[in-house]
Amino acid sequence: MWNALTDAARELANRSDIRVVIIRGDGDVAFASGADISEFGKARRSSDQAEAYHATVQEALDAIEAIPYPVIAQIRGFCIGAGTAIALACDLRYLDASVRFGIPAAKLGIGYSPPWIDRLAQVVGHSTAAEILMSAKLFDVEKAQRCGFANEVLPVEELDSFVSERATLFAANAPLTLRAAKTCLRELSKPEHTRDWSSVVDAAQRCVDSSDYQTALKAFAEKRTPEFLGE
Amino acid sequence: MWNALTDAARELANRSDIRVVIIRGDGDVAFASGADISEFGKARRSSDQAEAYHATVQEALDAIEAIPYPVIAQIRGFCIGAGTAIALACDLRYLDASVRFGIPAAKLGIGYSPPWIDRLAQVVGHSTAAEILMSAKLFDVEKAQRCGFANEVLPVEELDSFVSERATLFAANAPLTLRAAKTCLRELSKPEHTRDWSSVVDAAQRCVDSSDYQTALKAFAEKRTPEFLGE
Amino acid sequence: MWNALTDAARELANRSDIRVVIIRGDGDVAFASGADISEFGKARRSSDQAEAYHATVQEALDAIEAIPYPVIAQIRGFCIGAGTAIALACDLRYLDASVRFGIPAAKLGIGYSPPWIDRLAQVVGHSTAAEILMSAKLFDVEKAQRCGFANEVLPVEELDSFVSERATLFAANAPLTLRAAKTCLRELSKPEHTRDWSSVVDAAQRCVDSSDYQTALKAFAEKRTPEFLGE
Repeated sequence: MWNALTDAARELANRSDIRVVIIRGDGDVAFASGADISEFGKARRSSDQAEAYHATVQEALDAIEAIPYPVIAQIRGFCIGAGTAIALACDLRYLDASVRFGIPAAKLGIGYSPPWIDRLAQVVGHSTAAEILMSAKLFDVEKAQRCGFANEVLPVEELDSFVSERATLFAANAPLTLRAAKTCLRELSKPEHTRDWSSVVDAAQRCVDSSDYQTALKAFAEKRTPEFLGE
Repeated sequence: MWNALTDAARELANRSDIRVVIIRGDGDVAFASGADISEFGKARRSSDQAEAYHATVQEALDAIEAIPYPVIAQIRGFCIGAGTAIALACDLRYLDASVRFGIPAAKLGIGYSPPWIDRLAQVVGHSTAAEILMSAKLFDVEKAQRCGFANEVLPVEELDSFVSERATLFAANAPLTLRAAKTCLRELSKPEHTRDWSSVVDAAQRCVDSSDYQTALKAFAEKRTPEFLGE
Repeated sequence: MWNALTDAARELANRSDIRVVIIRGDGDVAFASGADISEFGKARRSSDQAEAYHATVQEALDAIEAIPYPVIAQIRGFCIGAGTAIALACDLRYLDASVRFGIPAAKLGIGYSPPWIDRLAQVVGHSTAAEILMSAKLFDVEKAQRCGFANEVLPVEELDSFVSERATLFAANAPLTLRAAKTCLRELSKPEHTRDWSSVVDAAQRCVDSSDYQTALKAFAEKRTPEFLGE
């Protein structure tokens, strides 16, 4: 499943006919209920296997983060363990009121991967990250909203329409601006010495040099809504 | 307007008869409704012009941040685009319930300046920053309070008196302590390799060596309220 | 008192029969009402004395942070000045509704120690940190919850049982996982160039190599609750 996720994310990253990506679970029960623990006995028995497993998951998370469009996690039901790691690799998380999220690593004696803890702490803060990891408990949406895990919490019956409204909104905006914003936020979330700041400056520069920018200024003067081409 | 803001901030920074600065909009409609987009066709047509424009705005924001006193943004109505950048250059943001804030760069194909995105993400967190930038939407005070953009949200009729109460409170406190706190928070918000940590240590040291500190200890022993001179 | 705190924390850090540490005030009135200001005239008169005092407090805070188990601050009543610094050295803060917290350094002309400001800003964010330091005011639990100082706020009569429930929950989890999570969060909160990342990797590695992990996999397959030994 992780390799399939990597492949799908890489394919989406290379398509030019896309403006927004939505990641959601199949069905109503869960966004992702975590890794298949019954397989750990085989797949993560030794240190070498565990390292290989973490590398495979990390590859998928990196591929999601590298998608140059806004990536929305549309979350309902269970969002657990590696499922939270996927949710955190997205730019935004919209939840319905049924969500239960958490990281049960401490019930299994597993070391949750340090880069995922880093990302968790960036989104929910150090204190909530500590509570999530040390309790291994599932939390509800009240906590998700309070700690910043959820960008928005919707009633169960409204999540679909809310997410599709937001996706439409993002899709109508200038792709180069979104790419520049995403590039900047992504590099800022990395340790300072590994940041590629020139890519951030380049992405901002591309906006100024774009024909989309000229189109928008003209549309503004004529009180029209511009149509952006990402060029 | 940006040059005037820079000049005003620099003048205030050099005056010794000041304890607190409040930045507010003129009138009831807005804190700042953003840059004058109708001028972009002229002022930001080329890359060079855009770079010059950003540098001018950055100069004003730096001048606000360099004011060695608490700087309060008193925000009502619209707080948009470069207006949010001004608000974020202040130490504190007090809003009334009428506020609508947002960054519409993605509707114009503009690249929002990377240092402003950095500051935005520091105050509201990465997820909300992504949502603000990718939606280009205006948000209300409920979001402002939840994401930490607002230090406090007041009913429309109470904002004036609340801000003036807080300003009075800050003004009665020891100026050297406030300066030390501000110096520390400001350096902490910079990338690590550009921090001037010695200025932080110096500012803390100046408190211990001050006559204000001796005055306060004496007043404490005598159960009086001390009057601070900033010396 | 600071030396006693250092000694107690170091002793707890070295015991292997411990799973969780709870720090609470003596009695109902306060978690810690701050340093004894009436002693400052003697103990912090000169720069040298102030530096020695700060070093003593820092030693106690470091000793608390070095405890390799989850450390909970159970907070009721006043939590002021150096008391907030102790609370912030803990991993988690559970408060009852009676709490009033704040840092009155600016009423005394003291420079609040820069490393404590760093930690404060990490937990409550830069804006709230500025407000706390510049106002020197006491805030209530509504603010504590909003800014992330409180992991949870409980009614006065429920704090004891809530904390003991959470402590029991933490204590039943795999100690090596908790240690790995804590090591990672602790290093992430340090300036980047001072982080000991190899200790984070080692702590995660120890989980995979542990017999606790094998025990847990077996228990999972047999639908039993595992008992963790920290080995």
